[in-house]
Amino acid sequence: MTDRAAYFEFLCRMGDNTLVLGHRVSEWCGHAPILEEDIALANTALDLIGQTQMWLGLAGEVEGENRSADDLAMLRDAWDFRNCLLTEQPNGDFGQTMMRQFLFDVWHLAILRGLEQSSEPRVAEIAAKAVKEVQYHVERSGDTVISLGDGTLESHRRMQDALNLLWPYVGEMFVPDAVDAAMAEAGIAPELTSLRAAFDAHMGDVMAQATLTIPDSDFAHKGGKSGRQHSEHLGHILTQMQWLQRAYPGANW
Amino acid sequence: MTDRAAYFEFLCRMGDNTLVLGHRVSEWCGHAPILEEDIALANTALDLIGQTQMWLGLAGEVEGENRSADDLAMLRDAWDFRNCLLTEQPNGDFGQTMMRQFLFDVWHLAILRGLEQSSEPRVAEIAAKAVKEVQYHVERSGDTVISLGDGTLESHRRMQDALNLLWPYVGEMFVPDAVDAAMAEAGIAPELTSLRAAFDAHMGDVMAQATLTIPDSDFAHKGGKSGRQHSEHLGHILTQMQWLQRAYPGANW
Repeated sequence: MTDRAAYFEFLCRMGDNTLVLGHRVSEWCGHAPILEEDIALANTALDLIGQTQMWLGLAGEVEGENRSADDLAMLRDAWDFRNCLLTEQPNGDFGQTMMRQFLFDVWHLAILRGLEQSSEPRVAEIAAKAVKEVQYHVERSGDTVISLGDGTLESHRRMQDALNLLWPYVGEMFVPDAVDAAMAEAGIAPELTSLRAAFDAHMGDVMAQATLTIPDSDFAHKGGKSGRQHSEHLGHILTQMQWLQRAYPGANW
Repeated sequence: MTDRAAYFEFLCRMGDNTLVLGHRVSEWCGHAPILEEDIALANTALDLIGQTQMWLGLAGEVEGENRSADDLAMLRDAWDFRNCLLTEQPNGDFGQTMMRQFLFDVWHLAILRGLEQSSEPRVAEIAAKAVKEVQYHVERSGDTVISLGDGTLESHRRMQDALNLLWPYVGEMFVPDAVDAAMAEAGIAPELTSLRAAFDAHMGDVMAQATLTIPDSDFAHKGGKSGRQHSEHLGHILTQMQWLQRAYPGANW
């Protein structure tokens, strides 16, 4: 794989993570349990979609085939998506959504902090913008995980169920492949494995406060960031997300 | 409205009814409560889609703008659909699906019998083919409504709930507008109002056997067959139904 191809892949991974998770979170709009949360979720989704525009915009430039961020978001099919499987998992209840968010946010913050030091100034610049938003995301999702985990018997049970359900999707974010190795070697991105200790410390701290037990298993679902095997969910997301642009190609407003 | 435009509208109504209901019924594929029902539902869906191909194929010819049945099915947006609202209602549980089917089937059989006498030979021909399938549909859905209505306390309650929920969508199928008047005058289709007595007799007979009470209300949701006001459901159906053709225009296999 050439460096440019690997760089394009890496940028798609960053942008597809925020695109797919942003879409998932936006599904809550108008449905969240209280108004404050509804607005907070919508804002989180907007942050993620905004970051998508930056990552996929740069991806299109690097690719050099004249594809815009919109083209990449709206006109690729499932097998060309590079988001990790965690981000495409269904919302479930509010607690499950916030657990997914927290698991992603902690990883997201760690990699963005690494990317702030990127040898590519454009990457460092995007990361510096995104990190401010994500610091807030992780604070909010962490606080919610603690409140609900250390809440009522019912909320505790639901949060533990959510953690058990989603934990097997954490591993994929940390397992490096050829793309990650090329990025680390070029100094564009941090070594993924180097992020794990900070992740585990942050996770352990919040889960202890939330009185939740991290599953004792290293099993990890994989295939999302390589595009080799997305879950069935992604196709359903894309039918909803892309229908308008597919039906009205080039539509603007 | 010219006769040709009214004729096109009418054919779209017939074809969109069977297309949208066929899609809904196909959603059960692989999910029905027992294998026999799964196969029966899939066969019903296939019958309806097959009828769609005939109705929309003729509609395209009548329109004379070179649109195929596939073009009409896959490339129109919600506001151009002419199905009655009943057909786009969600499946709910198995009983609700079968109640929707029975309400539609009884009307469908009545209008097809009228269309067998159409002054337009092509219409009479399609109706003659469809009526054989629909006779079987109505027998099956009627038997199921009776079994479940006159079944356990739970199945009875669910069927009565389904009838109460869906009854307000019956009226639209019988209320004539300018298109229906033009069709009746040209001898292409029967007067819609003339079908009501047979519908009520059939309905009354089956519901009595099913120990179900037909709601004492004439209220009718309208706007589907005129295309003026579809429910939110139709847009979601179309995103799923049309995505492939929208994403891969002209795709064949």
